[in-house]
Amino acid sequence: MNTNKNISNQSASKIKKFRRELPSTENLTNGILSGNKTALSRAITLIESTNSTHTKQANEIIERCLLHKTNSIRIGITGVPGVGKSTFIERFGKKLTAQGNKVAVLAVDPTSTVTKGSILGDKTRMEELVKDENAFIRPSPSGSSLGGVARKTRETIVLCEAAGYNVILIETVGVGQSETAVHSMVDFFLLLKLAGAGDELQGIKRGIMEMADAIVINKSDGDNVQRAKKARVEFTRALHLLKTQDNGWVPKVLACSALEDIGITDVWETITNYVAINTKNNFFIQKRQEQNKYWLLQTIEDQLKQQFYSNKSVKAELQVAIDAVINNKTSPFTAADKLLNLHSK
Amino acid sequence: MNTNKNISNQSASKIKKFRRELPSTENLTNGILSGNKTALSRAITLIESTNSTHTKQANEIIERCLLHKTNSIRIGITGVPGVGKSTFIERFGKKLTAQGNKVAVLAVDPTSTVTKGSILGDKTRMEELVKDENAFIRPSPSGSSLGGVARKTRETIVLCEAAGYNVILIETVGVGQSETAVHSMVDFFLLLKLAGAGDELQGIKRGIMEMADAIVINKSDGDNVQRAKKARVEFTRALHLLKTQDNGWVPKVLACSALEDIGITDVWETITNYVAINTKNNFFIQKRQEQNKYWLLQTIEDQLKQQFYSNKSVKAELQVAIDAVINNKTSPFTAADKLLNLHSK
Repeated sequence: MNTNKNISNQSASKIKKFRRELPSTENLTNGILSGNKTALSRAITLIESTNSTHTKQANEIIERCLLHKTNSIRIGITGVPGVGKSTFIERFGKKLTAQGNKVAVLAVDPTSTVTKGSILGDKTRMEELVKDENAFIRPSPSGSSLGGVARKTRETIVLCEAAGYNVILIETVGVGQSETAVHSMVDFFLLLKLAGAGDELQGIKRGIMEMADAIVINKSDGDNVQRAKKARVEFTRALHLLKTQDNGWVPKVLACSALEDIGITDVWETITNYVAINTKNNFFIQKRQEQNKYWLLQTIEDQLKQQFYSNKSVKAELQVAIDAVINNKTSPFTAADKLLNLHSK
Repeated sequence: MNTNKNISNQSASKIKKFRRELPSTENLTNGILSGNKTALSRAITLIESTNSTHTKQANEIIERCLLHKTNSIRIGITGVPGVGKSTFIERFGKKLTAQGNKVAVLAVDPTSTVTKGSILGDKTRMEELVKDENAFIRPSPSGSSLGGVARKTRETIVLCEAAGYNVILIETVGVGQSETAVHSMVDFFLLLKLAGAGDELQGIKRGIMEMADAIVINKSDGDNVQRAKKARVEFTRALHLLKTQDNGWVPKVLACSALEDIGITDVWETITNYVAINTKNNFFIQKRQEQNKYWLLQTIEDQLKQQFYSNKSVKAELQVAIDAVINNKTSPFTAADKLLNLHSK
């Protein structure tokens, strides 16, 4: 007993020490590659940190994880609050782990610093998935800029894949610019919608419907079944009016009930079908390569802007210039030239 | 006779001299404000010039013209080649001048350097409007970048308005990024479409439909009338699926035949109705102010990018970085940081 107690005391102290001290890059990377959730969580914390030592360490871990080739599917899931995203992800995730998949659930929510995590913050909404050893759930990183939040999430994807998660679900709220960011980091983009309440006739944020590879009408249960059917017809018709995607894929419109577990399997079949077709015609890998390039150029451009707008001389003159331009006192182009001169001095 | 001949010789030499020598900023500005087409044309040539002396003079003229307040309507007109833009503009322009308006027709076509002016280059397609003393037609400025072409056109609008043109039509081809540029410089954005040939069910460039304040189905004549009616229904339904504009305006779908002069007046009534509503609720002026601000910030961001990508060290390393990122040898963010460091050195 005494010996046992000592051993467990030693173990506890070891664990405490591990938690206090920052493990080496080597240890964290190996931990991730062996599928250790604690190592994965800690490395993600490094990614999210603003401390430059942490950033350096995070970058090394990412570079090593990048070398680790995996077959994963990255799925973006968007929809306005109330559409039932959490319930859908819980049900969808459980189906996938039951089939032997390892599922990571991430989120991009730039508003989370303000709202203290409006999505995925409350893990209790995914009770079963949280307890699932083949699922890993991480709320949105906080951050004032969408660029920062998106970057962190995108880097986290790399670590999750290296840790063996082969399905990455990335949740976002359908109300801002974050969809474009998520759309640029996933293989398949899912738009959740509600039938009824006139929702199929309005409220679609411009451009989001055009990004969707599938639209899923959720809460197609009880009184809603008929409305969902009607909504499917409406959306199918609307999608036909849009230009075909470059890969020839025609976005699918499905109906499901996450609550009553109806139609969830169809969603997964649609996605695997999409992946099969696009792997065959090489579009899948091409899209990922284009996304990599997109993030390189996008990061450069974001940083250039950030440097400009945080320049002291620019800051002092920007509002004056905006006011002059708004009131037609000067041309936008002349004003821009002046501010650019201030910046390059 | 001899005296007359001398006088006309003198006049001719004066004109020649005027054409050879660059008139002063003062003369050009006064010429523009008095509605002189030659002065207007010459000032636009200064805007289009790459000579820095010309640019300086152009900027002075623009600043002076900006002070001249006018009531104008700026209308963007887009549609794929073959939709009948020239015929529509000719017919529409003539209707407007007949009502006492002064109409300027400009174009934004970044491809024009390659195609030697695919739109408006051939003025013979607007035979009647060219001869109309209350119309002023100017083909797209040439230029390798959309930003440059758009800037020149936007500055030209200011001069045309100062010269008394109260309706500014800006044509663009519905195949590229130029619609966004034109949309950002007009009060009303018109999308020309064709009925029939399955065109209503496909081929709409993503996002363009969402920018339209009105969709006009052209060539609604002969056998096409029924198809145009059907297309109206389809488009009206599709537009309902989009989110309402900030100003509450629901985009109108109209049918017309520019060739047979049917429905052209309805288009103008829709536009004046839009202007009336939006002037009343202040949206009209707010939109123009936002556009001014947009062009200020957009120009800054374009220039920052241009400076970056033309930096010698960046140029030397960019493709290497892109390749590394595409092949997952490095993270897009790490590669971006390296390139940004090169640039700021």
